[in-house]
Amino acid sequence: MKVSVPTVFIDKEIAMNNIKKIAEKAKKNNLVFRPHFKTHQSVEVGKWFKESGVDCITVSSVRMARCFAEAGWEDITIAFPTNILEIREINKLAKKIKLNLLVANLETTKFLQQNIEIQTDIWIEIDVGYHRSGIRWDNFKEILVLAQEIEKSSKLSFAGILTHSGHSYNSKNISEIISVHEESLERLTSIKKQLLENGLKQVKISIGDTPTASVAENFEEVDELRPGNFVFYDLKMLKINACSEKDIAIRVACPVVSKNKEGLELVIYGGAIHFSKDVLLDEEGRYIYGYLTEEKNNEWGPIIKSSYISSLSQEHGIIITDKNHFDKINIGDIVLIVPVHSCLTMNVMGNFRLTTGEEYVSLCK
Amino acid sequence: MKVSVPTVFIDKEIAMNNIKKIAEKAKKNNLVFRPHFKTHQSVEVGKWFKESGVDCITVSSVRMARCFAEAGWEDITIAFPTNILEIREINKLAKKIKLNLLVANLETTKFLQQNIEIQTDIWIEIDVGYHRSGIRWDNFKEILVLAQEIEKSSKLSFAGILTHSGHSYNSKNISEIISVHEESLERLTSIKKQLLENGLKQVKISIGDTPTASVAENFEEVDELRPGNFVFYDLKMLKINACSEKDIAIRVACPVVSKNKEGLELVIYGGAIHFSKDVLLDEEGRYIYGYLTEEKNNEWGPIIKSSYISSLSQEHGIIITDKNHFDKINIGDIVLIVPVHSCLTMNVMGNFRLTTGEEYVSLCK
Repeated sequence: MKVSVPTVFIDKEIAMNNIKKIAEKAKKNNLVFRPHFKTHQSVEVGKWFKESGVDCITVSSVRMARCFAEAGWEDITIAFPTNILEIREINKLAKKIKLNLLVANLETTKFLQQNIEIQTDIWIEIDVGYHRSGIRWDNFKEILVLAQEIEKSSKLSFAGILTHSGHSYNSKNISEIISVHEESLERLTSIKKQLLENGLKQVKISIGDTPTASVAENFEEVDELRPGNFVFYDLKMLKINACSEKDIAIRVACPVVSKNKEGLELVIYGGAIHFSKDVLLDEEGRYIYGYLTEEKNNEWGPIIKSSYISSLSQEHGIIITDKNHFDKINIGDIVLIVPVHSCLTMNVMGNFRLTTGEEYVSLCK
Repeated sequence: MKVSVPTVFIDKEIAMNNIKKIAEKAKKNNLVFRPHFKTHQSVEVGKWFKESGVDCITVSSVRMARCFAEAGWEDITIAFPTNILEIREINKLAKKIKLNLLVANLETTKFLQQNIEIQTDIWIEIDVGYHRSGIRWDNFKEILVLAQEIEKSSKLSFAGILTHSGHSYNSKNISEIISVHEESLERLTSIKKQLLENGLKQVKISIGDTPTASVAENFEEVDELRPGNFVFYDLKMLKINACSEKDIAIRVACPVVSKNKEGLELVIYGGAIHFSKDVLLDEEGRYIYGYLTEEKNNEWGPIIKSSYISSLSQEHGIIITDKNHFDKINIGDIVLIVPVHSCLTMNVMGNFRLTTGEEYVSLCK
């Protein structure tokens, strides 16, 4: 591990295994597997998915859609309420690839009717309980108006209803994740049924979060699966048992630049611009920005719960550690950190290395 | 304001005024003004400082030092505990410009003695109460050992003692900022006195944080001032009265992509990858990721306290607003947000526009 500045390391074998598991689950349940690429934003990691048989993807911005279209992806859903200010770029892309869009309101739908230049699949975003964006699951009237508006348009095709059950991230354990999943499915299935009763010909269901995709087994009525984070996982996913430690495919390597004897602290070159500032409250009530791990015989060891990043400023990270590690770790050493949120870490870093040595830039930055 | 994606806007006039104020304060107090460039990381903003008579700067990484050296800056302090793993790059830079380094431990000092290839000024970092990095102010024994070690080295020159009183950020008001400042000065002055008594020939004092630099008037015994954030300021600085609203030179323009009627919420394209995730607890106990402002007659209006970003995910921001603004603001509009932490916002965005229209890339990204 010869690095001199904070560096993201990805274990391709672990990531490929994560991809394979969800791909197989999708296949078994007859689901379209449309992974979200916002987690890695990397053309290289995209290839790993292609090798695993994936041919359609999800992104969260026009910028990312453009990047992956340039990299050869031909079926891309932008799972973000369509930004009408980017209509020119959207039209350009929609003529080049199969671009699928999301709407969560009538204004955008009417705008697209008038301004989209090519036949485009439109999903209605449903808020099944996360309360971020989308029409609320219990507002069927509005959902129907939207679906009919899309259906009657000559340029728009109604694809179905789509949700991101992001509230599954707040679960405490697997059974809570399953509860979120079952409730979401119930709400979506009910909407689908009512839409069909109201004359809509076909209503697909697309769901997306990593926790439910990882632990749920029931996908009845679901047509499409769009998780993203699972490719690397992270401490957030570990905390709620959406993954196990050995599934986490990402580490951040950071130089130790000083040691504070008073608090058994290591000062590392690795701050908010390397990890982002996502934080985790652990079972002991401590705010954690990352846990220490070690490398043994070229393999990543277990998480060391007694050694964690307790604070981050722009370039500095402070690791509170135990006597043993404090004495063992020297200035000039590289420490390995398991990050709290792999998506934001990948985004701020903008490039990564494989544990086998190859270096890549996230071109979509 | 013709933008279609989240965009940082900087008001150069406000920024220039902020620079001028601190530059004049430094001049009046006979201080070297060595602004920290990590806030903007921009060669263009660097020019504004040059126009204001600044000829030496502070950065927080070798990467930034290299970038600004390439842009013509010839006297740069890396105010971060020297990362010995970057010695090759450090030597390269030190031969090109006057590069000044920081040490906070004996190991790094000894390493530099053996490996630095050119005469270099070394500052000892003192922790005066922030508890991030540096030798604690009350550990004079270790400070002395370090100073003597530097002094006796043929390649290292002892510049003095340097601190970042980052705990001033936690102040509640001006009087608490002044308390942090006075306590820091007292501690630094006492160390200086003792070092002189112990035979050190010259001991300069360098201080750095924006809150104390903005509000303090007493700089007796101080030789150098290194604040960074003041060029743009932000909500954190406003909260503790380190600046006034009209001093904040930064806004983030974000497209409105949807509206949630249930909670009077605006969904904006503008998330953690645009703002970072720094958060502020306001006087009403609300967690704030940014406040809304409006533009009137080409001027930025006041902060609208009833309208604030209540949550951020990767690309989404949710603004909780009032009935009036909810009705007035339409999908496809651009809203202006005052960010919580300008340094991290500039870092994640990587580029910016002036209110007068010019676009710039932060080349140091």
